[in-house]
Amino acid sequence: MTDQKIILTGDRPTGKLHLGHYVGSLAARVELQHIHRQYVMLADVQALTDHAHEPEKIRQSVLEVALDYLAVGIDPKKTTIFIQSLIPALAELTLYYLNLVTWNRLKHNPTVKLEIQQKGYGENVPAGFMIYPISQAADITAFKAELVPVGDDQIPMIEQTVEVVRKFNRQYNCSVLVEPEAIISTIARLPGTDGKAKMSKSLGNAIFLSDSADEVSKKVKSMYTDPGHLRVEDPGKVEGNPVFTYLDAFGTDKAKIIELKAHYQKGGLGDSVVKKYLLEVLQAFLDPIRQRREQFAKDPKAVMHMLFKGSEVASAVAHQTLIEVRDAMGINYHK
Amino acid sequence: MTDQKIILTGDRPTGKLHLGHYVGSLAARVELQHIHRQYVMLADVQALTDHAHEPEKIRQSVLEVALDYLAVGIDPKKTTIFIQSLIPALAELTLYYLNLVTWNRLKHNPTVKLEIQQKGYGENVPAGFMIYPISQAADITAFKAELVPVGDDQIPMIEQTVEVVRKFNRQYNCSVLVEPEAIISTIARLPGTDGKAKMSKSLGNAIFLSDSADEVSKKVKSMYTDPGHLRVEDPGKVEGNPVFTYLDAFGTDKAKIIELKAHYQKGGLGDSVVKKYLLEVLQAFLDPIRQRREQFAKDPKAVMHMLFKGSEVASAVAHQTLIEVRDAMGINYHK
Repeated sequence: MTDQKIILTGDRPTGKLHLGHYVGSLAARVELQHIHRQYVMLADVQALTDHAHEPEKIRQSVLEVALDYLAVGIDPKKTTIFIQSLIPALAELTLYYLNLVTWNRLKHNPTVKLEIQQKGYGENVPAGFMIYPISQAADITAFKAELVPVGDDQIPMIEQTVEVVRKFNRQYNCSVLVEPEAIISTIARLPGTDGKAKMSKSLGNAIFLSDSADEVSKKVKSMYTDPGHLRVEDPGKVEGNPVFTYLDAFGTDKAKIIELKAHYQKGGLGDSVVKKYLLEVLQAFLDPIRQRREQFAKDPKAVMHMLFKGSEVASAVAHQTLIEVRDAMGINYHK
Repeated sequence: MTDQKIILTGDRPTGKLHLGHYVGSLAARVELQHIHRQYVMLADVQALTDHAHEPEKIRQSVLEVALDYLAVGIDPKKTTIFIQSLIPALAELTLYYLNLVTWNRLKHNPTVKLEIQQKGYGENVPAGFMIYPISQAADITAFKAELVPVGDDQIPMIEQTVEVVRKFNRQYNCSVLVEPEAIISTIARLPGTDGKAKMSKSLGNAIFLSDSADEVSKKVKSMYTDPGHLRVEDPGKVEGNPVFTYLDAFGTDKAKIIELKAHYQKGGLGDSVVKKYLLEVLQAFLDPIRQRREQFAKDPKAVMHMLFKGSEVASAVAHQTLIEVRDAMGINYHK
């Protein structure tokens, strides 16, 4: 425990979590909570930056995502799970940091630029969306997070936070803020059931952790495979075939998977047979998650209570940082 | 008292207040506090948007400006005087409102555009400065202010707030936020002692409410007058002559001022004579202010305590608005 570090991570609550989230972040969180001091944030304030028109979706998703967390084994005794909007210090830190960053710098954040393009915002991008990297800097520094797990597309966000930390500490001649380091996920992104590069709710190609056995069955049956694999006897491709990617990610019988791949590549193995096996694998993986989720879902008040308790803990930590920030700036009027 | 309205006004605490502030806003506040429910904000968070490098100046100015308020007769029993940074709800409201405003809209705020030009920021304008109109919208709406006294250069700021109010109420189908109305000052701006259009600390042409009798005397003696009035017997100009503008603003013996003006215009009245009279007038005006200020300055802790009490009252009001805002958005998790 000597090398225990502080980790901040989280999700924008804009829908239930799926297998892509599990592979990309949830699995790691379940491990990391045993090694480090982990905070997981339900980033509702950040979700509002591009969902201001549908706050009810965010509200519902807070509970759903919390259920997903508990179902996969994120343990509130080990991980502090909290709701961003219940931590007022984060908004205050954001405003102080915004004075240390130029308008020009925000405009040139590569991640935000790409997202603006993808969302088709153009000049009508909400101002809140443009400044969300600074809101993230507030989140990360409030907890003095040393490690932040990110995808490689999110590296510019960590760079922005590091800039804020350096500017603040230099400007106010202090060492209050801590530079975070990115933990860059080495795991390849899980493709969608349609074979597209990314599993995503908005693309309609996701298998959710909360999907029923029937829903999973339907989704697996209609999965994209090798479009050149027309007849059973044809040789089929394994690369870029999501059925095999999922088997690699969730199957435990590695020998059997190697055998299936060889057979498929040689020809003589029908998609339906491989899909039937994938379905078994996924149900075996999802069954216990689904059961735990149903159990927790019976008492949503208890789940919210857990989030409120986590938010109290997180709020105290963030408030302490805010006090130190104000001390460093010298606007601590009570002192 | 039936037509009592809520007023929000205030100052960026970046230095002591001067005669220009008195004429432009303080005098009105002393009157308005008897008619309306007045909040006066020491806008330290806003001051940081362009003074992030000198927070100690802001900190000191909070006390100095509070002393100026008390000295001119703003009464904490009638007016709630508070410190912006002690009201966390304002930062939270700012972040929520930023999602309802486009980046493009912020860029085209005429007041901010002009200020950027004046300050020579160019592309390096701090992001916090660009968004300060939304921070102001948070200040105004947090107190449900119906009236906001402004100079005519500040009208675009009130328009921006009205836009936020309408957008919020429409977006969340509610009537939580209140549209403010500008009270536009009809009083001409007080020129500087150098005859420039505006009295301003940064131009070094200000007479401060806290200046000693000696300082006032020196400043009046070196005041700009009519540059064409070379010899006593020459006719002199009264228009654009700050000595007469100050007499109009602070003199009580209107008949005498009319007489002096006529004499000056005709010729035969020396600048030193008029200045001597102006000095009498200013000392008569400033003496009681100076005395009250010195009295209050003996106990700075009591002044800060008054600000803390005011901030508690203000914080409760702003927090109540934040609760209503969250209710309207439906992200009131505790309900």
